[in-house]
Formats: sequence, C-alpha cells, structure tokens
Amino acid sequence: MNNLVKLQNAVRDAEIDALMVTSPVNRHYATGFPSSAGIVIIAPGKAWFFTDSRYFEAASNAVKGAAVRQIDSENTYAKLVNAVCAEQGIKSLGFEEEAVTYKEYAGWSEKFTAALTPSQQLLTDARAVKSRGELDKMIVAQRISEKSFLDILPMVSESITERELANELVRAFLKNGADDTSFDPIVVSGERSSMPHGVPMDRKIRPGFLTIDFGVKKDGWCSDTTRTLCVGRATDEMKKVYDTVLCAQLAGIAAARAGVRGRDVHAAGARVIADAGYGEYFGHGFGHGLGLEVHEAPTASPTFEGTLPAGAVISAEPGIYLPGRFGVRIEDVIYITQTGCEDITELPKELLEL
Amino acid sequence: MNNLVKLQNAVRDAEIDALMVTSPVNRHYATGFPSSAGIVIIAPGKAWFFTDSRYFEAASNAVKGAAVRQIDSENTYAKLVNAVCAEQGIKSLGFEEEAVTYKEYAGWSEKFTAALTPSQQLLTDARAVKSRGELDKMIVAQRISEKSFLDILPMVSESITERELANELVRAFLKNGADDTSFDPIVVSGERSSMPHGVPMDRKIRPGFLTIDFGVKKDGWCSDTTRTLCVGRATDEMKKVYDTVLCAQLAGIAAARAGVRGRDVHAAGARVIADAGYGEYFGHGFGHGLGLEVHEAPTASPTFEGTLPAGAVISAEPGIYLPGRFGVRIEDVIYITQTGCEDITELPKELLEL
Repeated sequence: MNNLVKLQNAVRDAEIDALMVTSPVNRHYATGFPSSAGIVIIAPGKAWFFTDSRYFEAASNAVKGAAVRQIDSENTYAKLVNAVCAEQGIKSLGFEEEAVTYKEYAGWSEKFTAALTPSQQLLTDARAVKSRGELDKMIVAQRISEKSFLDILPMVSESITERELANELVRAFLKNGADDTSFDPIVVSGERSSMPHGVPMDRKIRPGFLTIDFGVKKDGWCSDTTRTLCVGRATDEMKKVYDTVLCAQLAGIAAARAGVRGRDVHAAGARVIADAGYGEYFGHGFGHGLGLEVHEAPTASPTFEGTLPAGAVISAEPGIYLPGRFGVRIEDVIYITQTGCEDITELPKELLEL
Repeated sequence: MNNLVKLQNAVRDAEIDALMVTSPVNRHYATGFPSSAGIVIIAPGKAWFFTDSRYFEAASNAVKGAAVRQIDSENTYAKLVNAVCAEQGIKSLGFEEEAVTYKEYAGWSEKFTAALTPSQQLLTDARAVKSRGELDKMIVAQRISEKSFLDILPMVSESITERELANELVRAFLKNGADDTSFDPIVVSGERSSMPHGVPMDRKIRPGFLTIDFGVKKDGWCSDTTRTLCVGRATDEMKKVYDTVLCAQLAGIAAARAGVRGRDVHAAGARVIADAGYGEYFGHGFGHGLGLEVHEAPTASPTFEGTLPAGAVISAEPGIYLPGRFGVRIEDVIYITQTGCEDITELPKELLEL
C-alpha cells in the first residue's frame, strides 16, 4: 500500500472531508515526489497535487494516484483548492497545524471556502509506521553513516580538533553517497563529552571519552548513530559508566516491542542507570522516532504515554553525563516488530580505546 | 549599534509594547547567540532571553543587553513571559507570524496574558539593513565559496557527473572553512542548463553550457553565486545569449542604489533581455535579499514595489533559459549604498570555454 492510499484510508476514518498537505516533507511522503512548492489534497479514493511550472512536468510523470495540476497567475492555489472542494463537496479540510505558520493559516482562512481543521496527528501517525521498503531505505542511510565513521576512525588523535574531525566525517558522508547530513555532527572530547548537545570546537581532541553523534540523509531518509570512544586508557570509573550505559541500552532494546508504552522502554533503560547510582546524570529520553525527519513520532521518553506501533523506527540512546568530568552515550536505531525489535545499526559497541 | 538596540528602537516606534522572538534565526540575529531553543522578549530599553539548561551558562556569558533566565519544569516559558509582561505592563506582544506555527499560536494565545500581534515586518525590515560588520561576515562567506569554485574548476570535464561535481564543490566548501552550504548546489549541463532550479543528476556533464549556482554559510551568514561556463566551444547564438545576460546583470547593478524600487532594478535588467528578443525566457526575478538566510528582504522582482534601503544585500542574477536547448544565469551579490552599490563578488564573469 503506498502512502497516498494509507493517508486516504486515514482521512476516511477521520472527521474531515479531505486533508491538505503543504509541508515539503509531508508532500514528499504523500506523493513520493520531492518538491519545494505545492499543495496535495487527499480525499477518500481521490487525490490532487497542485504545483508550479518548475515541477509540473516531472510531477505529472512521477506522481501516481493523484491528478497533477499546474498553478499560474490565473489559476492560483486558492482557486484550484476551492474548485476541488466545490466539485467534491469538501466542507472540512484538515491541515498541518505544526507546519503551517500563523500567517498562512490566517491567509487561507480568508481565501478558502472549506473550514480548516488541525489534522497533523493523522500524518504523524501514518509516518510513525514504516513499511519494509521504507526501512530498507533507512538501512541504506545507516550503512553510509557507519562506513563513514569507520573511515574517519584512523584520524582520531590528539592532533586533530573536534571541528576538523566533524568536517572529515561530513566529507566521508558525501564521498560514501549521502545526500546531506541529517544534523550537524556532535564531536565532543575530554570533559566536554559531558555535554549531550555540545558543538564541535576549534580545539584539539583531549584524552578521555570522545562522543560522536552523527547521521546522514539519503533519498530523504535519515540515519542517527552515537558512539563514545576513549582516547587513551579508560579508568575503572570510566569503564563502569560505559558498561552501565551499554547495559541500559540493551535493557531498553530488550523491552521494546509493538504495544509497549514509549515510557516503559525508557524506564527499562533508566532503571539500569539508576541502579548503578547515576540516575540523576541521565537527563534526556531513551529514544526518539526517526524517518524522513531525524526527530519524529513515536518517542521513548518518560512523558510519552502512547504505545509503540509495529513498524516504528526509534533511536536507543541512553547516556550518563558527569558535569565537568566526562560523559558516555551509545545510540543504535531499532525497528519495532510484533515480537520485539531489530537493531539496524551494525557498528560494534564494545569500548574502543585508541 | 547592536541588533538588540536596533530592535528596541523599532519596538518603540511600533504599536506593540514588546516583541517576542522565537525563531532560531531571529533569536540569533537579536542576541548574537546561536541556540536551538529560547524566547527573546524585547521592550524599549530592556530585553530578556529565556532558554533551557543546555544554553543557559553559555548565553549568560555571551548575550549582552538582555537578562538571561533559565526555564525548568517549574518556571516554564509561559510563566517567565507572563511574569515579565506583568512586571513591565506589557499588554501587546508582537510575534513572528511567518515563523510561528498555527499550533504554537493557538497554544500561546491560551497561556499568555498579553495579546499576540503579528509583527514579523519589524524583524524583516531590521534584517534587510546590514551593518558594515555584517557585510564583512558575508564577504568572508562569499570568498570561501569563490575559492571553492576555483578549486573545483579543473575537475570540470565530460567524465564527471553533475552530482559528483556538486559533491566535490561541497567538499571544497568544508575544506575552505564553510560551516555548511546555504542551499544544495545546482549543477546542470547541456540542455539541462535551461532549468533554473535543476537538481544535479547522476549523468556525465554534457558539452555546452554548465550552470553552477552555489553558496555557503559561515558563522550564520550566507553567500550565493552563479556562474555559467561552456564545456567545449560556444556557438555564436550561445555567445549572444551569454553576453545578453551579462549586459542585463550590469544594467541592473547600475540601476541599484538606495531609494530605488526593487521592481525598477529588475526592469533595468529585464529590458536588456527583452530588447535582445529573449524577454519570454527570463521567468524569475532579478534578485533577492540574503543575509542570515539565503532568501530574505528586500527583493528586486517585478512585483516588489518597495524601495531598496541603504545597507541591503541582494543578488543580481538575471538569466535566459531556452527550453530543451540551453540556459545562462550569472549571479553576483551587491551591497546597496546611498550612491549606488558595491559588488562583493570577485569571480570573473567573462565567458569561460573549457
């Protein structure tokens, strides 16, 4: 079942007559066609894709299951949307309240005949469940980032800066076929490894833990991985922290399967960290969904009451951060199934001392 | 005068009591401090920056002229905003209607005591006028991209694909100190050079025109440049089209100075193209503003009635696109002054046959 059909079924079950998709990422999701401008209207059994002259020809060839129409100065988006709504009797039109700006909403409210209804959840839920075909694309992105990480490992030393290493990683991504990064790589060393969101600095890598959090985009799909290495020898305390994070990750992964609450997956990992006495040093969630965006639904965090659906792809990334001293985070990506989950990350996880 | 003071003066002249800045780019603009989360409140003579624990310490050191406060589960953004509004008698709070989503707006409307007033224009106008210091940063970005272009020129041949060349260009950006691209480079050859927004393809560069449109980000500031080369010898018709585009660019640049309408700068360039008989093949605007974003105010397009302020930075990029045959675009970046403008692009513009 393609995504357009999946969304048509969701619209049929919702209290709207049709869904209007305007964000680039969701347009891409719905049509399979990347574009920087356009509106998709999705009704049960029918769909339309309005776009401009730059994309019209390519979209006409590429988009299956939607009537493609070209806007121009005469036939504006509003005119085409209103024509379809009149023709199909669409009175309530869902929209993406998390992507549409206040200005767009205010403008459309004036121009459109249908009533606009916040309906983002419908897209969020659809995207949270990945098909095997989509998973395969995410695995391609994952492999590119893993190969790139292995490519730059020999460059890790105290004579390169955090920022230089981050740049080498990005270069490796592109050489290995990535379209882009999925976020700016985090490369933090020494006492800076205690910063979960540290930005690489123009300073040489220091002895101690080195955390590298990285991902690429390939054909629109994201990867996300974190490894923590040790530059030099790890102390017993550092080894204990590393092993605790690894055990916490494995515990969370073991708890993950379809139907389990996101917060319970988090709790399974957090319990291991708390039991080792580091509870207060794990300040973020166990994992987040990823797909066409590097953060999307569902979430394995203490506040996420919802359950994980089969087909969800989430990160598994517990960490312990001792301020001013050191930190460790280990992150894989897992695919949720009825019986458990598949870890799609292949990089080894044992502590590497360089 | 720093940007915070500039915005405080703008708030004083506007019909709002204070301005709330929430988008990353405008937070960066207002405070000089890059962050992924936070709210800036700007009132005449006073300012506050609320952010979370990740940024609090760094922001406290870096942000001048604003009181920095940390949010937590107790002191939420809404609580801190409402406290400042109560304390300062702020009843009308401007917000960025082009950046704030409908969902954020709807949530804030419930939680905030002050009335929310669309006020994006105030930020747009402030950012449209660059100081000499800001221009210097844009010139740094421009030089990185120009050096990178010259670095990859020797690689241009019929044995490399468009996409490989685009990747080499991005690698050169990073090697030369760019933080990022300002957009994905456009590399289109042969008959594809007639596509103003063509995406590089996995096919070898063809003989004929090769258009490369590229830019970097450095310390938040963007560059933007286009050059069209000829792979092999240009025919007389190709030379005529190239010379027409170059003359059109020079005519637009000659017309640009503070106080001139954006549409008149466009018209000066478009007239040269129309006089040469190619009027229908120049379908986009002459130029767009750039700065912290690669597209911002003001604009030199047929529909922009406003005048260009001194300090505006805009692109000058006319083109002629003959569908299925070939196209040419030449793009520099200019700084608008009282008496004319300064072209900050240093790459040569004569037709290069490789």
